[in-house]
Amino acid sequence: MKNIFSRDRLMASMNEELSYPFIDAKEVAEKLALVNEFGQQESGGFSRPPFGEQEILAHNRFKEWLKELGLDVHEDAVGNLFGRWEGEDPSLPIVLTGSHLDSVPHGGAFDGPLGCISSLLAVKALKASGYKPKRSVEVVVFRDEEGTRFFNGLFGSRALMGEITAESLHQFVDDNGISMYDAMEKEGYLPKEAASCYRDPKTIECFLELHIEQGKKLEQQQKKIGVVTGIAGPSWRTFTFHGSTDHAGNTPMNSRKDSVAAAAEWITEIEKLPALFSETAVATVGRMVVTPNGTNVISGHVEADVDVRDIDASARDRLVEEITKKAHEIAEKRGLTVSVKDGVTVDPMLVPDHIQSWIQEAAEQVKVGSMKLHSGAGHDAMNIGKYTHAGMIFVPSVNGKSHSPEEWTTLDDCVIGVKVLSEVIKKASEQ
Amino acid sequence: MKNIFSRDRLMASMNEELSYPFIDAKEVAEKLALVNEFGQQESGGFSRPPFGEQEILAHNRFKEWLKELGLDVHEDAVGNLFGRWEGEDPSLPIVLTGSHLDSVPHGGAFDGPLGCISSLLAVKALKASGYKPKRSVEVVVFRDEEGTRFFNGLFGSRALMGEITAESLHQFVDDNGISMYDAMEKEGYLPKEAASCYRDPKTIECFLELHIEQGKKLEQQQKKIGVVTGIAGPSWRTFTFHGSTDHAGNTPMNSRKDSVAAAAEWITEIEKLPALFSETAVATVGRMVVTPNGTNVISGHVEADVDVRDIDASARDRLVEEITKKAHEIAEKRGLTVSVKDGVTVDPMLVPDHIQSWIQEAAEQVKVGSMKLHSGAGHDAMNIGKYTHAGMIFVPSVNGKSHSPEEWTTLDDCVIGVKVLSEVIKKASEQ
Repeated sequence: MKNIFSRDRLMASMNEELSYPFIDAKEVAEKLALVNEFGQQESGGFSRPPFGEQEILAHNRFKEWLKELGLDVHEDAVGNLFGRWEGEDPSLPIVLTGSHLDSVPHGGAFDGPLGCISSLLAVKALKASGYKPKRSVEVVVFRDEEGTRFFNGLFGSRALMGEITAESLHQFVDDNGISMYDAMEKEGYLPKEAASCYRDPKTIECFLELHIEQGKKLEQQQKKIGVVTGIAGPSWRTFTFHGSTDHAGNTPMNSRKDSVAAAAEWITEIEKLPALFSETAVATVGRMVVTPNGTNVISGHVEADVDVRDIDASARDRLVEEITKKAHEIAEKRGLTVSVKDGVTVDPMLVPDHIQSWIQEAAEQVKVGSMKLHSGAGHDAMNIGKYTHAGMIFVPSVNGKSHSPEEWTTLDDCVIGVKVLSEVIKKASEQ
Repeated sequence: MKNIFSRDRLMASMNEELSYPFIDAKEVAEKLALVNEFGQQESGGFSRPPFGEQEILAHNRFKEWLKELGLDVHEDAVGNLFGRWEGEDPSLPIVLTGSHLDSVPHGGAFDGPLGCISSLLAVKALKASGYKPKRSVEVVVFRDEEGTRFFNGLFGSRALMGEITAESLHQFVDDNGISMYDAMEKEGYLPKEAASCYRDPKTIECFLELHIEQGKKLEQQQKKIGVVTGIAGPSWRTFTFHGSTDHAGNTPMNSRKDSVAAAAEWITEIEKLPALFSETAVATVGRMVVTPNGTNVISGHVEADVDVRDIDASARDRLVEEITKKAHEIAEKRGLTVSVKDGVTVDPMLVPDHIQSWIQEAAEQVKVGSMKLHSGAGHDAMNIGKYTHAGMIFVPSVNGKSHSPEEWTTLDDCVIGVKVLSEVIKKASEQ
């Protein structure tokens, strides 16, 4: 049976006698269910596109929770939501912690919401315990992390780091022709003041985000906490093999310039390459467009994207070059040509050692197993980490499923995550 | 410079001092140009979809030529056009010769029209020489050979062989939702009487078609005439690899079930297989559909069609089985599954030895080089050859180009073809 989200199903995944002071497992499940009342799909998944009605309703509900907790709440011009718990020395750089509430179409219940709720409930637990932070702590909900509506993801954190101009918001347009600018304005945000979202990174001691792993490593190693060492920056390139469109019946095997065959040989080679460059590198061809794509026509053109990632930028870049060299070699050997177009390239982000240590120590303190791993997927921490410190805590994903209605994390693992995050926030705010 | 068709360009390709009694090279060029006044595209190619205005105009023009030649002209219920030259013994099975005037979208000037005009002008030359055939000779123009409008090609010859029922014509629908039945009726044809097109194959001694090679063998061997030994029947199968849709960043290389990678390995294997089964076999993957087809998503499903052809049906079928076995092996090794769906399978058609000999002898008589070869592409002769004798004469295709504006055959080669065809018709009608 598939792991389709419901509050009751989540409650039933609480198998152990887990109990941490001031953290209520039932509240974790309840709040996850309440956020996921918005954007429910028949598929069992959730669709909350950014600046759409369902995401806004979820934001408003979360805003109420921040207020109930007695935090000082404000929303910036693009709708990033903050709840501030004033520290003993308000002049010190703050501890920022949170995630996002928007989702991919038919996404899961945890990607984003679990991070927001964990930050909220970690602060709640610390407050309830009578703890007084030295630095101020701010819970944040970023806008449009996923980027599937306007193709402009990790948006809120880029606005916070001053990377977004008002003008640029006209360029990002959804499938209905609505620009990001217009979508925001319609909902009462202030896109023309996007630049005002900037917060000097010197005022932020660190950003901490809890997230589901979206992979299988924790599950395979039976660890509860992933200490993220860095986020692998993707490097995308589009390759087009140009052969000759010929009749599948009348062209002997040895006089073909078959672009599907060339691309196939190249993809088979690509699979063997990452291991030669680093233990953490991956390379994927996930998109291929064959032209003319007829059963009885030898294909004249194949366009294929390669997504290459590693936390070691130099290994990644050498791997990209090797993949490019292979494409040229294979094309030349077969009498084809290949054209190459550079796509997005984002530098990997490394998590500072001291943040990794906090997370590791917090896991030890809570007596759960942890392991170091890197994130292959992008997160808001990637942007903030360019300017100041950022760290991430991963909790296990059942079967590694993500961006799917089958996304699942047991309530046990969610609650352990909240507890570890609260300990890490404490350490960070004490610095 | 590309070989884009025009009458003047064709005339300029008459390089040798070629002159055969009663065959006027200028008339060959002229008539090709006149047929190709219909369906001209900006691409330089020609679009004459069946039962469309442009194909009908071409048919009507050709009908006038048949009448001018003094042939007894009639059109059957589905619009196949016949011009009969009565033989000395009208009770004998006839010699049928011709081709088609419909085209693929943006097709060339020769595929179809050259065969029709060659049959017309071969009969004209024989008549002018004072020759009296023993058997009657009929020139035919078949409807909808290409099948690109209604996905129901080699149509006219199937109607002639009694394979078409009126009811079936409702099932074939073009991209605008118009059924073959309605398209025919609108243009004044009689689809409900489709069965009346049947001619008893015993009344046909043989069918003879001249066609461009659509391959490079004649050009490579510098031969003028291709003696077609048979038509390779295609066998189509659709394979779907089912893997696991996962995040391209978060899934290590060794825990993937990547359907693109599996399909790529399989396609690379397929390329090596035909040579192990026969010298004439070919196998092509020309259509691939990747799902979800996202740059940063490991593909969960790849659907790919394989087109396998050979004139040796047994070798072809063993090759199809080997390709299927490889798909299962590769899927299993990688932890994927594969599903297989059978598509069209047409038996190869073999040209009887005596017709091959007529063509070879005619080429010797005309003092041009000939070679035996098979056709990888389907032709109307494939249907007629199932029930009675059928033979084909190929003339060279420059660069092997076909179904493209660049389709080109020099006027020399067209004229040699007309001459050889006239000699073969003579031999056939004398039997």
